[in-house]
Amino acid sequence: MTIENYTASVLQYIPVFYIIWSDDLLSASEINVAENAISNDSSLSSEDKKLLKSWLNVKNPPKNSVFKTWKQLIINSGVKLVEHETYPLTAFSEKVATHYHGEIPFNECIKNIEINLGIQPNHYNHLFDVHIDVDKKSSQYSAKEIDIILKGKHADTINTFRATLNDPIFSWQVRRNKEEFRNHVLKQVEFLAEKGYGAMAYSKEYGGTNNMEGYAHIFENMIWADGSLTIKFGVQFGLFGGSIQKLGTKNHHEKYLTKTGKADLLGCFAMTETGHGSNVRGIKTTATYNKDTETIVIHTPGKNDNKEYIGNAIHSKMASVFAQLIVNGKNEGVHAILVPLRNKDHELLPGITVEDNGYKLGLNGVDNGKIWFNQVEVPKENLLNKYGTILANGDYFSEIKNPNKRFFTMLGTLVGGRICVARAGLGGAKFALTVAIKHALKRRQFNDSVKVQEDLLMDYPSHQLRLTPLVANAYVYHITLDKMMALYCDESQPDKRKIETQVAGLKSIITWYANDTIQECREACGGKGYLLENRIADLKGDVDIFTTFEGDNNVLLQLAAKGVLSDFKAEFNSAGFSTVLKLLSSQLSDKLSTINPLYTNKTDKDHLYNPKFHIHALEHRTHRLTYTLAMRIRGYIKKGIPSYQAFLKVQTHLMTLGKAYSAELAYKSFLEHTETITDANHKELFEKIGTLHALQEIRKDASWYLEQGYIGGTKSKAIRQRVERLCTELRPHLNTLIDGFGIPEHLLTAPIAN
Amino acid sequence: MTIENYTASVLQYIPVFYIIWSDDLLSASEINVAENAISNDSSLSSEDKKLLKSWLNVKNPPKNSVFKTWKQLIINSGVKLVEHETYPLTAFSEKVATHYHGEIPFNECIKNIEINLGIQPNHYNHLFDVHIDVDKKSSQYSAKEIDIILKGKHADTINTFRATLNDPIFSWQVRRNKEEFRNHVLKQVEFLAEKGYGAMAYSKEYGGTNNMEGYAHIFENMIWADGSLTIKFGVQFGLFGGSIQKLGTKNHHEKYLTKTGKADLLGCFAMTETGHGSNVRGIKTTATYNKDTETIVIHTPGKNDNKEYIGNAIHSKMASVFAQLIVNGKNEGVHAILVPLRNKDHELLPGITVEDNGYKLGLNGVDNGKIWFNQVEVPKENLLNKYGTILANGDYFSEIKNPNKRFFTMLGTLVGGRICVARAGLGGAKFALTVAIKHALKRRQFNDSVKVQEDLLMDYPSHQLRLTPLVANAYVYHITLDKMMALYCDESQPDKRKIETQVAGLKSIITWYANDTIQECREACGGKGYLLENRIADLKGDVDIFTTFEGDNNVLLQLAAKGVLSDFKAEFNSAGFSTVLKLLSSQLSDKLSTINPLYTNKTDKDHLYNPKFHIHALEHRTHRLTYTLAMRIRGYIKKGIPSYQAFLKVQTHLMTLGKAYSAELAYKSFLEHTETITDANHKELFEKIGTLHALQEIRKDASWYLEQGYIGGTKSKAIRQRVERLCTELRPHLNTLIDGFGIPEHLLTAPIAN
Repeated sequence: MTIENYTASVLQYIPVFYIIWSDDLLSASEINVAENAISNDSSLSSEDKKLLKSWLNVKNPPKNSVFKTWKQLIINSGVKLVEHETYPLTAFSEKVATHYHGEIPFNECIKNIEINLGIQPNHYNHLFDVHIDVDKKSSQYSAKEIDIILKGKHADTINTFRATLNDPIFSWQVRRNKEEFRNHVLKQVEFLAEKGYGAMAYSKEYGGTNNMEGYAHIFENMIWADGSLTIKFGVQFGLFGGSIQKLGTKNHHEKYLTKTGKADLLGCFAMTETGHGSNVRGIKTTATYNKDTETIVIHTPGKNDNKEYIGNAIHSKMASVFAQLIVNGKNEGVHAILVPLRNKDHELLPGITVEDNGYKLGLNGVDNGKIWFNQVEVPKENLLNKYGTILANGDYFSEIKNPNKRFFTMLGTLVGGRICVARAGLGGAKFALTVAIKHALKRRQFNDSVKVQEDLLMDYPSHQLRLTPLVANAYVYHITLDKMMALYCDESQPDKRKIETQVAGLKSIITWYANDTIQECREACGGKGYLLENRIADLKGDVDIFTTFEGDNNVLLQLAAKGVLSDFKAEFNSAGFSTVLKLLSSQLSDKLSTINPLYTNKTDKDHLYNPKFHIHALEHRTHRLTYTLAMRIRGYIKKGIPSYQAFLKVQTHLMTLGKAYSAELAYKSFLEHTETITDANHKELFEKIGTLHALQEIRKDASWYLEQGYIGGTKSKAIRQRVERLCTELRPHLNTLIDGFGIPEHLLTAPIAN
Repeated sequence: MTIENYTASVLQYIPVFYIIWSDDLLSASEINVAENAISNDSSLSSEDKKLLKSWLNVKNPPKNSVFKTWKQLIINSGVKLVEHETYPLTAFSEKVATHYHGEIPFNECIKNIEINLGIQPNHYNHLFDVHIDVDKKSSQYSAKEIDIILKGKHADTINTFRATLNDPIFSWQVRRNKEEFRNHVLKQVEFLAEKGYGAMAYSKEYGGTNNMEGYAHIFENMIWADGSLTIKFGVQFGLFGGSIQKLGTKNHHEKYLTKTGKADLLGCFAMTETGHGSNVRGIKTTATYNKDTETIVIHTPGKNDNKEYIGNAIHSKMASVFAQLIVNGKNEGVHAILVPLRNKDHELLPGITVEDNGYKLGLNGVDNGKIWFNQVEVPKENLLNKYGTILANGDYFSEIKNPNKRFFTMLGTLVGGRICVARAGLGGAKFALTVAIKHALKRRQFNDSVKVQEDLLMDYPSHQLRLTPLVANAYVYHITLDKMMALYCDESQPDKRKIETQVAGLKSIITWYANDTIQECREACGGKGYLLENRIADLKGDVDIFTTFEGDNNVLLQLAAKGVLSDFKAEFNSAGFSTVLKLLSSQLSDKLSTINPLYTNKTDKDHLYNPKFHIHALEHRTHRLTYTLAMRIRGYIKKGIPSYQAFLKVQTHLMTLGKAYSAELAYKSFLEHTETITDANHKELFEKIGTLHALQEIRKDASWYLEQGYIGGTKSKAIRQRVERLCTELRPHLNTLIDGFGIPEHLLTAPIAN
């Protein structure tokens, strides 16, 4: 068969077929796409159609000789592939056909194949002579539009804040000496306080705008300037100020909140002790009420009972101290008391010892320290007494009678902080991804002997695979954290127990994600990523501890899992055997859906890209893990093993469940939000991002799904291939996707990103 | 049935049965162990045996009422479990029986159950009233003995070196200012040079002992003092000195090598360029021979063609510069030329520009810099001319005619460095593990309401699971690197191509392992791990870049995979289509073994602990990945896709193969060595370590094995449970295992480890 035998209409399809058969991934649904296009193409005669369809038989693919004829035909046409055209393959096909047969119209059916198969120039540009216009980038999606979607209703707040960060005080530089660094960060905090950002989450009477949701966004953007700034800001206004706002009453608010928001009163949040990190209920510091003097005496009983790792400890005038409150000789549990630390000349008050924690892996602009109290007396008014107070008669009183519930209500104040920590981690990940991807879109390495230019790093499949899913995750987690903060702030939902538990799990998976991402970006930038000037190194050091503070991730995951186990109705720590069994009962009665065997090896694109499949897979994992966990615990308890020990035995199972539930929650939140996007073009992009995220999530846990028989080997492979394919499909839009994060130029100071 | 109905002999078994049935993991092989013990116990009557065996039926387990009787019987005896006894369960059983029936002898058969089922007190101590003697540790194995095994024939060298590191010059402290830090590290390097360690790997004529293997051990131990010291030491003596030793000839050796070994001549290794990191062959610096003046002119042609990230650049007097050698207008490929950088007063020589790389994530005691050459003239004698020289008549001459082979022969000099980098990473991992585990053996957190003490971190299953496999890996990689260095130094094997390729893969997996381990240890220590004083933070920053330098891990993995593909016969980069196909042919003719279906769900302990299973699994993975990779590449090439592009398309597959092969190689090396251990007790320990390593390796890639149908879901779960179980079994020996690394007290300065 010679070239001239092909009609113009058939000829147009040759480049498409050439590409399809160059790739081994041709699946049933893809053939389907091509077949439908051919059937619907009115420019084709029935003979043309028959011929084209004969080339679509997987079991009997075109012979190598035919394949070579196609190649020759394309080469002889002398047509160049223009990478930046909107539909490069369709345009290329049109030009090849035109070369041989004179002008023919743009073929919508071929365009449909190009779109539906997700064929991107980087799939096939090695097959053709390519015209590359390096300046031109895909304009299918708009970074500005994406940024608007991500900012949501907080656009004004965020825009103003980003502009604020353009002040020279925020210009990034290497600061090695901790004292200088801390003093500079303090100035930055004061600068932001002056602009009103410190009080933002407080009510209007105290200088704020009651805007906790906006505050979380600010927090994420702040880490683009510096991690130490972000954390010191959070300690001062979120933790110290937050404890006054949420655990204190009107007197405290009036006396301290305005000053705190303006950074006129610097404070710290003294909860953690050297001997007790995660187990807050076990802290040893005592706050003993003295009826005679109407004072509370704060005391550190033992060597390891000092407050540890307290941010702002060196700069603070006051501390919000968590201690066992003892009234009339009875321990009423952990309460927070405001304790002055220093006088106006910044000298320590009697009985107070503070020691610098010294240099850390990161966050050296935050002044962490240890604090000891030696019989320090404060007026009883200093008790933050919203949930428990000392009456005029010297008795203790709380409206929450259950000490356990009281404790967890107070701890609930940490939840906002946990969302913010996750947000800051996410901001760090976005920054690192932006640097790494912008670098990879410029940096060339290796080539074949023919091409003049070496290949862009970003065109390596391994590079696409290591970075693209991380970009997708950033989008999913952004939307998720937005939603959680909105729920947390929703006054119509007074019982926040469920949200607290959900946030515990999300904080874990998102801060781990942030660390992994920053590490991947460091390595992806090679030695350049190791230089401080390129900013990834600092992020690595700063974000690292996010997995530990505001609740150790491993502990939080167990908390989340226990929430799932009890349908978010109670927490297990102190529950006896019978309570545990009662809480488990609904899980044990849950029937697991059986899986249709046809489903376990369904590998077509429509199925794998369908959110229904993703949700089913993620829900099934949570259900199954919950059920088996409940079974195991019941088994142990029936044998008389104390519930505490039973939970210890299933610890790794608990953590797996915590992760699984959080992943499900994140994806569902993202899907829900995607539904609300009005612009069809970007909605489709978000759907693709969601698909990549979900498939990668299933892929990461493929061993579990395979073990359970939920997916078969073929499906598992298909998912892996789809993940790789989606990364390649998103390759032309990567620059848009990272620009969509909205990191302003004045903050993106990494030389390799410019 | 009342308590008195049990005979003394039966009574002895009650605690064992109580424990066995408290745990759901009872498998066929475990029942077997108990059954055999009962059958062999001559103290039991046949009725006793019948009764005991009736309690071993998994399908009909003892009723809850029986179970409760047992519990009551144990409680009423008032006997305490003594955790630190050699056979705590057997001793406990004996005491319980004695309580009811008077003194009875120690039962060897119960001891056998205790040992063979690997029942450790932390499995069951929650069931009983426990007497804890915190000072006492398991003495079953000896840390000293393990250290001797790991040091092998280099014990004297290592011991002397460890003592040398006790000099105050090596005392660790925070050094934030890079100039001060660098100057101090320089002094340390000079101190070691003076003691003869710099020249160690050189021959005797130049002050050395020709002891490259010992050098590698030294290198690993050195990072316990400081990472910057280790790297600067390696740059000076290994890279700069090594280039003179291995690429130079007698003249160079005589003129420079002794001075280099003594650190009287400081030098750097100028290979990498800003524009060319991994692709050394593409470097742009030129070295043009001028026949008239008999000089070589070194020149940096373009803006990005400067030498980049060159260690020792600020302190050096001379550089070993890699450049394109041009003789008579012909490019003869990359060669190394010695170029003086500074005069005696440490002023830069004309034409040379050096710029400080500035602060980095870690290794700030190493003076990295950029170097530019502007028409710098050096005598032609400065060409390191072992593999290519300029003759008296001005012509170029090399015994290796193939420029490709010549290039790779020269690059082979990097291999020793790669082993050393992996060793230093391993040393970092060992240090971090030692700190984290010693911390976890002291630190308590949470408890139930009954116990006075909180639980040790190390007794949490999740903590055991996160750290123990990493300890096992350290052992395996230690032995592997020893073996590779011995092969590399073996003069009887002149063609080092295979070893080079193997080392490429091992360097990748081991430096990644090191980073993951240090990160895990940081998190396992919580906030304490974040403080510089506890040393993990510095290791994190220092070891991070090991994944990038001396060859980026991703590039090296592809190199390793290409080696496997070609049976280590050639490298693919420049090979044409037909060569590639020829090289693949042996892989394609390879028949894959079929898997016996019985095998895919074999889950008994004997099978899962059998090294034959591990080797089969690891070999199968390598073979299968090689075969499918060869198939894919052949497919692409047959379609006319250039081999360079074909390899790009299978990049992620290549990397997977590179990792799989390296894992197989490491485990086999370890097994081989374990066979040579003469002491049966420690040999058994090493076997257990190997088993944990291998099962964890299979576990990590379970999705692949499941996809392939190599293991079934049941087996996959059994492997997971075995990994958890092995971690628990090794729990009492963890302290011994980390002490076995031999980190001297004077280097283990982390406060939390003491």
